[in-house]
Order: sequence, then structure tokens, then C-alpha cells
Amino acid sequence: MDYQQILEEIQQEIIPLIGKGTIADYIPELACVDKNKFGMYLLLLDDSAYEVGDVQELFSIQSISKVFMLALIISHIGEKVYERVNVEPSGDPFNSLVQLEYEGGIPRNPFINSGALVITDMMLTHLENPKEELLRFVQELAGDTSIAYNEKVANSEKAIGFKNAAMVNLMKSFGNIHHDVEDVLDLYCTFCSIEMSCAQLASAFRVFANHGTGVIDTKKYITKSQYKRITAIMQTCGFYDEAGEFAFRVGLPGKSGVGGGIAAMLPSHYSIVVWSPGLNEKGNSLVGLKALELFTTKTGTSIF
Amino acid sequence: MDYQQILEEIQQEIIPLIGKGTIADYIPELACVDKNKFGMYLLLLDDSAYEVGDVQELFSIQSISKVFMLALIISHIGEKVYERVNVEPSGDPFNSLVQLEYEGGIPRNPFINSGALVITDMMLTHLENPKEELLRFVQELAGDTSIAYNEKVANSEKAIGFKNAAMVNLMKSFGNIHHDVEDVLDLYCTFCSIEMSCAQLASAFRVFANHGTGVIDTKKYITKSQYKRITAIMQTCGFYDEAGEFAFRVGLPGKSGVGGGIAAMLPSHYSIVVWSPGLNEKGNSLVGLKALELFTTKTGTSIF
Amino acid sequence: MDYQQILEEIQQEIIPLIGKGTIADYIPELACVDKNKFGMYLLLLDDSAYEVGDVQELFSIQSISKVFMLALIISHIGEKVYERVNVEPSGDPFNSLVQLEYEGGIPRNPFINSGALVITDMMLTHLENPKEELLRFVQELAGDTSIAYNEKVANSEKAIGFKNAAMVNLMKSFGNIHHDVEDVLDLYCTFCSIEMSCAQLASAFRVFANHGTGVIDTKKYITKSQYKRITAIMQTCGFYDEAGEFAFRVGLPGKSGVGGGIAAMLPSHYSIVVWSPGLNEKGNSLVGLKALELFTTKTGTSIF
Amino acid sequence: MDYQQILEEIQQEIIPLIGKGTIADYIPELACVDKNKFGMYLLLLDDSAYEVGDVQELFSIQSISKVFMLALIISHIGEKVYERVNVEPSGDPFNSLVQLEYEGGIPRNPFINSGALVITDMMLTHLENPKEELLRFVQELAGDTSIAYNEKVANSEKAIGFKNAAMVNLMKSFGNIHHDVEDVLDLYCTFCSIEMSCAQLASAFRVFANHGTGVIDTKKYITKSQYKRITAIMQTCGFYDEAGEFAFRVGLPGKSGVGGGIAAMLPSHYSIVVWSPGLNEKGNSLVGLKALELFTTKTGTSIF
Repeated sequence: MDYQQILEEIQQEIIPLIGKGTIADYIPELACVDKNKFGMYLLLLDDSAYEVGDVQELFSIQSISKVFMLALIISHIGEKVYERVNVEPSGDPFNSLVQLEYEGGIPRNPFINSGALVITDMMLTHLENPKEELLRFVQELAGDTSIAYNEKVANSEKAIGFKNAAMVNLMKSFGNIHHDVEDVLDLYCTFCSIEMSCAQLASAFRVFANHGTGVIDTKKYITKSQYKRITAIMQTCGFYDEAGEFAFRVGLPGKSGVGGGIAAMLPSHYSIVVWSPGLNEKGNSLVGLKALELFTTKTGTSIF
Repeated sequence: MDYQQILEEIQQEIIPLIGKGTIADYIPELACVDKNKFGMYLLLLDDSAYEVGDVQELFSIQSISKVFMLALIISHIGEKVYERVNVEPSGDPFNSLVQLEYEGGIPRNPFINSGALVITDMMLTHLENPKEELLRFVQELAGDTSIAYNEKVANSEKAIGFKNAAMVNLMKSFGNIHHDVEDVLDLYCTFCSIEMSCAQLASAFRVFANHGTGVIDTKKYITKSQYKRITAIMQTCGFYDEAGEFAFRVGLPGKSGVGGGIAAMLPSHYSIVVWSPGLNEKGNSLVGLKALELFTTKTGTSIF
Repeated sequence: MDYQQILEEIQQEIIPLIGKGTIADYIPELACVDKNKFGMYLLLLDDSAYEVGDVQELFSIQSISKVFMLALIISHIGEKVYERVNVEPSGDPFNSLVQLEYEGGIPRNPFINSGALVITDMMLTHLENPKEELLRFVQELAGDTSIAYNEKVANSEKAIGFKNAAMVNLMKSFGNIHHDVEDVLDLYCTFCSIEMSCAQLASAFRVFANHGTGVIDTKKYITKSQYKRITAIMQTCGFYDEAGEFAFRVGLPGKSGVGGGIAAMLPSHYSIVVWSPGLNEKGNSLVGLKALELFTTKTGTSIF
Repeated sequence: MDYQQILEEIQQEIIPLIGKGTIADYIPELACVDKNKFGMYLLLLDDSAYEVGDVQELFSIQSISKVFMLALIISHIGEKVYERVNVEPSGDPFNSLVQLEYEGGIPRNPFINSGALVITDMMLTHLENPKEELLRFVQELAGDTSIAYNEKVANSEKAIGFKNAAMVNLMKSFGNIHHDVEDVLDLYCTFCSIEMSCAQLASAFRVFANHGTGVIDTKKYITKSQYKRITAIMQTCGFYDEAGEFAFRVGLPGKSGVGGGIAAMLPSHYSIVVWSPGLNEKGNSLVGLKALELFTTKTGTSIF
């Protein structure tokens, strides 16, 4: 299949959508991103790679970091993770407190904010230096030590993250946060602030397409069973309140972030990352979603 | 792969679980089903079939009929279906009214009761004789005209279906039910009362494994896009509040019913049906879930 | 105090508000009421009476009948009533299902629709002919046998009462409705359809100002304790989601209806009824609320 | 009426209840209070006073301070208070976040925690030294400068107040908290920590029985209209989820606290305070509620 041509076709076809959608301007540091940016990077297990657009430009991966956080903690403590966070879709806007209160402080899944905050709390317990270790984990997966946090973005997010603070406090009132509220929030915002390019993110994300094993270093980062669990959660909970729509239109497990990135993968075949900052009303990249839909349609690939 | 041996191994391994779980005894007619029943039927696209246990015994497919209802109406009116019912997971127990009220009478998806009730209402509008047509549709898919409704079960369910009645009335108050409340409830309960054996259900369900086209009659029942939509909904919403767990443990799109049946499929490969009446606390067949997990593990098959 | 002059002042002062607000046009039979109507009737325990406006014109008392329903059933079965309906404010719009589901089918109080529907169900159990008996009860309290139901209004309300039907069915699913759903709904809608004039309603309502004993017939309709309970519920739950506002602005226990009537009373002193069909956004008579506020301000009377 | 004898009768009659109920032990400093304590203090507008039990012992008034907070801020900024906090009952347990999220960060009333937290925030804006000023206000009302905060209780409450922190953060995310989260929480916990005896609290609370004017200093602390508003809120929202029950059993406006105190009053007649630390399941003093019920029954006094 001529992947390069397909990507180029897509780049043409999404032109009318470029600049549409809204920027996640509630985080001041993200508000100034150029809405016209677009990049798409495809990386196969055989190391062939295809790209169009701004694939080397760094963007804030935001919630996509939740997948790496889950993978890292699960590699340390295994299924014990699921004693404090559930694995089911939430059916609610991504930052709602209602369900959390109703369900006794146990978040619905690790990919909504409350769930990732509990994961952060676990990392504070089980990792020696979680801030450093998550970054090293992502760098290792991507094979690129230049990947870094953006402290400005982290601080910017921390300064306005009152709903996250509400959730951590609520969960702490239920006993499901063990560390200091501020420490959890600081670390969480730092995690969200990782900056990567489409190319870097595709490299890191490829470990999931390869069932948890590094393609180049052949290191077993997570077990096959852990991979399955993470993939199942991506499939059912990876796109805020649009998991069903994404499964239909794209048909790949993945995760999106409000920075406009979407990382997805076809097990045993490829990882693919698209980035475009304009978001649809559910908080997913408007162009990114369309581009991935076109890609799976044109290539006839999908998990279904 | 020696599928027959695998099924036989599974039949041995689930023995300790047989009789566990609870019967859906809120429907009096279902309360008297023998809890020790177990059947598992595998049907490949090449027509080879493998079976263990009570695969010829009829059981009440209950909510599994929702998949056929959706397929039938979508084949008539296409994507217009989704103007009155959403496609996202609910994150709630399967018969909750809260979300329905909060979201203005639009059910979260077609596989929760409220959603299937709206589908029933659409069928009353767009089909001439929906009761007959759904049955004929299922018979045709299964290639077996002996398949029938069980009126006793339908009446039994109707007589105690106050929560369903509450939902239909609530949706009617929002204008999302167009027909008479009683007519919708009657027809819905009839649909749920279809009785099939594992073998029949696997035959009917195979149309989804074949992307919407009949394997034997090669008739295009639904388009590829419609197939994708239905499969995406199965994947994210097919197992009440256990979609994430099922995706992890089994990794196949499917649908379960409180009669103890689970129908699932691997696209392009096979359909598989398991039946065992004891339910876990989420309302899915306890033994069925385990048997399918063993099957995908032993065969190494899964959409992931 | 010159009550007549005070009423006449009020009649002048509310002129700018006449015609404001919205009619409860979801009940077709009520939609054609003249929005400019206004009547106010004051009846003291010493039998002196004062009036302005359309005080002899019949209007649909609607939810005000809930007070009589509660008084009648409590006179039959006493505090047992409160085993199936609570006595606390709801904090929700008057017809919400959420709380009802959350609290296991037990309505918050007898003055929201769900609560009155349970009261209706109790009346079906404990009264021989509840339809006749409630009417006779109201006639007796008012000393006027001409008071009647309006079957057209009852049917009109029945025909569009899907939310009420949803509530009855939901409560029946919890076991808190013992009779046939249709029977409960029919009777409830009939109860709401009582038509009375301001003068008649003030006569009937005066029994509460007299602590449960008829002023003329000196019959003890309810005990002093039962009177206290009913009054407490009027005070905290009598005005949909505006109980606090009414307590502040008017300071009298009472009950309003979507027909535009408000009945209120000062214990040991008087009953007072005002009617004007335009409703504010909480469903209470806009002019009626203002007129009562002016009355208690000018007379310096209030329970506080 | 022989009030002293009545109080002594009550003291006898509640003996079987002494020691029943639970202590608010989630605040460690309160956990060690002697459960057998009981005091009741009646203070008439004519300055006659009657008492039984431990009426000079200091206890933590906790939520009763919310009445003084409201009175103080309303005396400064008037009805503007109600732009940021509603005046209706909540119908929910006293610290629920659901309603707060649903209603856009506007608390239901000033007597639930969220409402009092917003009041605290207003005090930070409009008072120069709110901590000092509230204390001075209470001292002045009580005519006793020895009244003080208990910093240990305040710190104790602060250290475990994660649910309050969740609420402040949630409201801040909606823009309804203007000051620093920590500052609001610190001040709020300080306010709750006021310690008073039954005698002192009855003196302070008597200003409400006197319609907002000091009985001895004849100072107009709040206007008559402001008094009415506060009284209406006490009546409908003063007893957590037991306002209706309290209105029935006692029939007086008032406010309770988890320290086991209840302050109530009969307008134009008296203030009355009872203290006993054992709480019923709704969080109100079990003995206190009974003692007040006996008092209004025996004296035949009530607002109804």
C-alpha cells in the first residue's frame, strides 16, 4: 500500500477543516498555539515511516500522557492498580464530580482526570522519583532523550486547575488519595505538560502496537495481559465522551489530548499520531479525528 | 487450530463455576431455567462448526435481540437512527433514568433498554409489521424458520416491566417516543422473548463477522459502514456496565442478555455463542464470560 | 385593621403585573384561561370576609388539592402515611425523577407530584370510593356542595401526563405503588381538576387556620398533631422550588397550584386565597405571590 | 407559665435518651466531648431566664455560627448576598457536591457548608478583618467579651476538611470563590470553632427573636426585612435534611450544629438553646430535638 500517497491525499482533503474548532484556551500557555498546524506520522512495526505536515514540531501531549502513566504504574504493581480505579467508560463529560461522589471516590477509569490523579498518587507511593521516572520511561520508549516537560505549561495548568483540586480533595475525603493534595496536583500537571512531536509520540506509542514489547530494544515493558488491559481501556475510554464515535469512525484503540494530539495504533501493525490544535465540542482534535477516519477508510485497516 | 479440543478443555475448566451466579428471576418465566446448563458454539466463515454442551437447547436471547433490532432498523432508515439515540457508553447500571432525564430523553445508546425502546418506536413507524419482520429477519440470518417468540416470556416481562414503562413515559414526555406507550412496551417485550439455541444464534450472528453480508445467501443485509457502527456500539456498549472488563478479558465485540447468552464475533473469522444462565452482579453470564475469556486466550484470537 | 382598604390598595398596586407571567399551557384546557383575571379573598376565624376582584369565578385548583388529599388520608390512617412518603423539601424542580430513583421510590414529600401520586395510591387502598370522598371532604370543608371536578381538565391532563406516568411506573418498580398504574393516574388527574372560587377555597382552607377543626361545624377533621405536620410541610414544601422565597416574602404556610391559585393562612387568624393565572418561572402565580407579600407587609402579619 | 418547672420536667423526661446518638468524631477535637452532657437555656425578651443542666459549659457551636456569619455579611452588603448563594432548601445531605455542580457553583442556601464557604469568601472581600469582626459581632450580641474561637478545633477541622476543600475548589472553578482557597478554608474553620455556653448562645440568638434589634443595647443589627430573610432560611434550611421534621416536631425557626447545639427562637417572645452532644443520623442533636419538641408541646408555643 502506498502509505505516503494516502497521507498526502489526507493532507489535501482536510484543508477545508484547518483552523476550525476551538483551542483549549483555558490553559493560557496553550492558547497561543497556531490553530493551522497539522501533522500526521505513521510508523510501522518494520520501521518504515511516513509523514505529512508539522511532524517535528513539539506540542503538549496533555491527556495522552495518561496512557504512559498507566503503563508505568502497571509495570510496577500490576493489577493492584484496579483496586483504586475502575476500568469502565464514564458516560459523562470528562471532568464530572457527580459520578465520583456517587461511586465512593473510585474513578471510573484511568483516562479521566480523576482516574489519572489516583494513578499519580500511586506513583508517589511506588516510584522513588516519579517525575523523573515517567519522563525517562517515555524517552526510552521513544528512543529520544530530548523529550522534556514544559514547566510553564505545568504551572499554567496548576494555577487554574480548581476542578482537578476539587476532585483530589473529594477522593481524599473518601480515602482514595494517600499523599498531600498539592503534591498530587503538582505532579499530575507536570505529567500533562510533556511535549513531543508527532514523530516522537508515534515512536513511543508503537510499544502498544507491539503488545508491550519495544520494537528496537525488544524490552518487555509490560506483559501481554497488561497490554490487553490498557488497550481495552483505550478502546472504551480513550476519547472522553466520544469513544463510541471514535470506534465507529476510526476503529483503532488510542488516546487524545486537549493539546490537539491523537495517538492510535493497529495491534501488530502500526502506530499513528496526528496533531492539529482545533478541538471539537467533545474536546478531541477536529482535524485529527477526520484525518484518522480517512486513513483507516483509505487503508481498509481497523480492529473490526 | 484444534477448535474442538479447545472447546472441550473449556468445558472441563468451567465445571467449578457451573451453577454459580444468579438467575434473572425478576422475569418469572426465566426463573425456572436450569442453572446448570452450558453450551458453546463456534461457527467459522468457512462453515466449519464446533460445539460443546447444550447447544441445541432454546434459551431466551433477551437483550441480544437489541443487535438484530438495530441492524434491521438501520437497514431501513440508515444513520437517521442516531438522531434519536446516541452511540456512547452510559457508565450507569443498564436501566437508570437519571442520565435519560439529564440528557433530554435521548438514550445513550441502542443497547440499553431506553435506547432499544426508542428503536422499537422507530420500527413501529418505519416497518409495516415490525413484529413479523424482526422475526423473519432473524430467521433469515439464521437460515431457520423455526425460530419464534415466546409469548409467555413476553407477557411475563410486560407484566413486571415498570421501569421500562417509566422510561418510555419519560422519553414520551420529551417527545422522543411517537407511538402509544403500551404498543411500544408490548412490542419491545416481544422482541426480547425470541428463543434460540446457541447454534441458531451463532448462525444469525455470523452476519456481523462477515461485515454485514450473509455467508450463505451472500445477501448484503447492512452496508459496511452500518456494520462498523453496530460493531463499534457492541464493543463499547454491549455488556451493560462491563464493556471495559469484557474488552480486556475477551477482546471481541458482542452482546449479552440476562437469559445467560453471550454472542460475540471476530470480524472476518467467526461468530461464537455461549449460554449459561447464572449471571454475575453486572448481569452478564458468569460462566459465559469465563468460557469466552478462555477461548480467546487459548486461540490467541482477539481484535487487539 | 381596615382589611377591605388594604385589599383595594393591593388591587391597585398589582395592576402593572397583571397579564405578566406564563399560563400553564401544557394542559390544553388551562391554556385558554384569561390571563388578566385576579381575585383575592380574606376570611377571618370570626367569619368576617373581605374581597377584591374575581373571587367568585371558578379556577382549577390543581396542586392545591394535594393539601386536601393529605388531610383526608391522614385523617384515616394517621402517621402511617409517612412510611411511604417523606416530609422534607426536595430541592429540585417539582417533577424530577432523579431524586426518586436515588431514594428508592420514596418521594421527598406529599406536595410534589410523586408524593401526591403515592397518596392517591393509599387512598385507593383505604377509602371505599376515594373520588367521591375527596370531593365530599372539600365540599364539607367549604360548606358548599356545588364544588365539582372538571372532567375535561382531568382528561386533558391525563392525556399529556407522561412524566407523571413515568413516576408512577418508577415507584411501582420499587414497590411503592400498590394499585394499577392507570387507576392511580386517572384518580390523581381527577383530584387536580377540582374547580373552586377564591371564596370557596378560602372557606375550605380555613380549617387549617383553625388547627384542623371546622369553624362553623366545629368538627375535628384532623388532630392538632396532624394539623402541625401538614402545616410544617406547607411551610417547607408548599411552593415548588420557591419555599424559601415564599417564607421570606410572605411568611405564611400555604400551597400553590399551576392554575394560578395560592391558598395560605395565618394560624388562629385567617385564611387567604389569591388567584391570577400568570405564573413565574418557578410555577407559582406571579401576581398572587406579590399580592400576598403586600398583604402580609401592610398588615404586619406573618408567622415570624 | 411556670417555665422553670417545664424545663425541669423535660430534664427528667429526656433521661432515657441521654448518651444515645453518635458524637461527631470525624473532628478529633470534638470526639472527646462527654456524651452525657445536657443543658437547656430559655431567655425571654423581658430578660427573665430559665435553665437546667450544663448551661454554663462551653461547647463548639459549629454550624450555628453560619447564622451569625449571614447576619453580619447581610448587615454590610444587604441582599447582594443572594446573587452568589440561593435561599432554597437543598434536599440533599448537607455536604453534597452533586447539586453544586449541577447548579453552576451557586450553593442552595447559606446554611449548607458550600453556602457558608461562599459567605466566608464575601466576608474576606467586604470586611477589613473578618476573623476579628465576626467574633466581636457575636460577643456584642451576647454581651460577653469572653467568647472565643478554639484554634485547636479549627485546626483539627481544617486538617480533615477535604470535602469542604473539594467544594471550595469546585466553586472556584465556576468563579464563585474570589479569594485563595486556603484562606477561605482557614477562616471558615475558624468561624465554626466558636465556643459558647447555652446561656451565651441564647443571649446572642435573642436578637433574632427581637426582629434584628438588640434587646438591651436596642441597636438595630439588621433590618426587619433582613431578619425576615434570615428567619425564613432558618425555617426551611436550618436543620440539614430534617427541616420538615423539625418544623413539625418543634415549630420554631433555628439552627443546629454537629457540636450538639441547637439554637431556636419564637419571634417576639424568646430564644432557647439546648445542647447535648449525641447526634441522630441526620446530624442534629438527638436529645436536643426531643427537648425542644417537649418544650413547645408543653408550652403550646410554636410559629404555627
